[in-house]
Amino acid sequence: MKLLLKIMYDGGAYAGYQAQPTLPSIQVTLTNAVSAALGFPCSVTGCSRTDAGVHALGFSAAIEPIVKEREDWLPMPIGKFHRALRRHLPPDIAVCGEAAVSDDLHPRYSVISKEYRYRMYDGVADNPFLRGRAWHLSRRITEDGLKSMKRAGEYLVGRHDFTSFMAAGSKITDAVRTISYLTVAREGDMVELAVRADGFLYNMVRIITGTLVDCAYGSLSADEIPTILHAANRSLAGRTAPAHGLYLSDVTYDREIAWILN
Amino acid sequence: MKLLLKIMYDGGAYAGYQAQPTLPSIQVTLTNAVSAALGFPCSVTGCSRTDAGVHALGFSAAIEPIVKEREDWLPMPIGKFHRALRRHLPPDIAVCGEAAVSDDLHPRYSVISKEYRYRMYDGVADNPFLRGRAWHLSRRITEDGLKSMKRAGEYLVGRHDFTSFMAAGSKITDAVRTISYLTVAREGDMVELAVRADGFLYNMVRIITGTLVDCAYGSLSADEIPTILHAANRSLAGRTAPAHGLYLSDVTYDREIAWILN
Repeated sequence: MKLLLKIMYDGGAYAGYQAQPTLPSIQVTLTNAVSAALGFPCSVTGCSRTDAGVHALGFSAAIEPIVKEREDWLPMPIGKFHRALRRHLPPDIAVCGEAAVSDDLHPRYSVISKEYRYRMYDGVADNPFLRGRAWHLSRRITEDGLKSMKRAGEYLVGRHDFTSFMAAGSKITDAVRTISYLTVAREGDMVELAVRADGFLYNMVRIITGTLVDCAYGSLSADEIPTILHAANRSLAGRTAPAHGLYLSDVTYDREIAWILN
Repeated sequence: MKLLLKIMYDGGAYAGYQAQPTLPSIQVTLTNAVSAALGFPCSVTGCSRTDAGVHALGFSAAIEPIVKEREDWLPMPIGKFHRALRRHLPPDIAVCGEAAVSDDLHPRYSVISKEYRYRMYDGVADNPFLRGRAWHLSRRITEDGLKSMKRAGEYLVGRHDFTSFMAAGSKITDAVRTISYLTVAREGDMVELAVRADGFLYNMVRIITGTLVDCAYGSLSADEIPTILHAANRSLAGRTAPAHGLYLSDVTYDREIAWILN
């Protein structure tokens, strides 16, 4: 038995999810908190390696004791642990719930789809409430600009080779992914992109977002997207949007997870 | 000529708007920044004295030089100052725009109505993105509870003596105010109250919110509101919601203000 935790975090203070020798990481912070709550050392494996500054609304991480002696290692009934964990977590990491899962579930490899959201703010001032939590665009996105973003997004939906939307230098050889939806919506001074796919390449959401913003401002045309996809060349797509507007919002597994939330 | 500034701030780090001898205040922070940007000392008068921890989305403050020698004291064209000011402000205070107004406008007494918003969060965990920015309710507001809040709110709309919704010990003698609207709406795990009136008594929005939440949970009934209003007795209304969920969202003056936003 592994315990899966559902987590939210503000990534602003962390050098990313993954443990690093000297910099603060979500993984180490979470491992220390879980070990303290359990009373013995454990390992924590996340559903994704989010970059420095990236946030999560619906992250999941699997907990296992490092020395596994019995199947029933959890020293309390399932459903109680995440509440006990809360007092050990810093205020920028929150645990929403837990689920017991079988040992063959891998928190990353058993994921069949993920949703990311990307938040942009184009109000007149640098909104203090969105500091480090949205990309502050210095120029307003017009209604026509928003339409261009949506049209560009439609070209990306479906099964494509996304090499043009992957950070240059990535060692991935198969860049074919399937985007099931990509939406762009404005609410007040906030423009939010939501995208779900069976997998994402390195920087893919940030390059998609930057490219759509370039379409909004007219430095790229939405109708160039098919050509950019076909060329499989990162230099043809637009800029990379900054990390701090990105949120991992949901992950779906290859099986039902019996989440206990409260 | 006075210069009116439109301001947003996260009040979390401040002991309120009003200048205080030893504690950080919005007023002193703003006065120092404006004086630095102008190059000579000035006075800053706000539209409201928000409490410690209260936020603002649409605050306005009037700027005047302390020694006023000429009508055209502003050392740059109108519309340029708020941009110059930005580099002197801390990241939790933002200036959205400015307007030249005549000397007879008083930033507080010339206000004819204000809108406040109150944000509540009733998700399963303590959302790291709403820390200090919404009241985290530990119990979910049901659909029926939300209906009760709306019904209670309807009783408050109109011209009433709001003594029951004023902090006990206030020295105000005329507690009659007119609420032009009061709405309660859920979006996901956020419940937001919006209320506009010609004026607000001390803690009025926070007591209204606390009372509506008591109605949502059933410890008060919405239909008791007329009786509570009529009694003019603070002890009959509900609890006072915490400061950190409250936002001053808009002020309207007795004349059109020619805002220059950018």
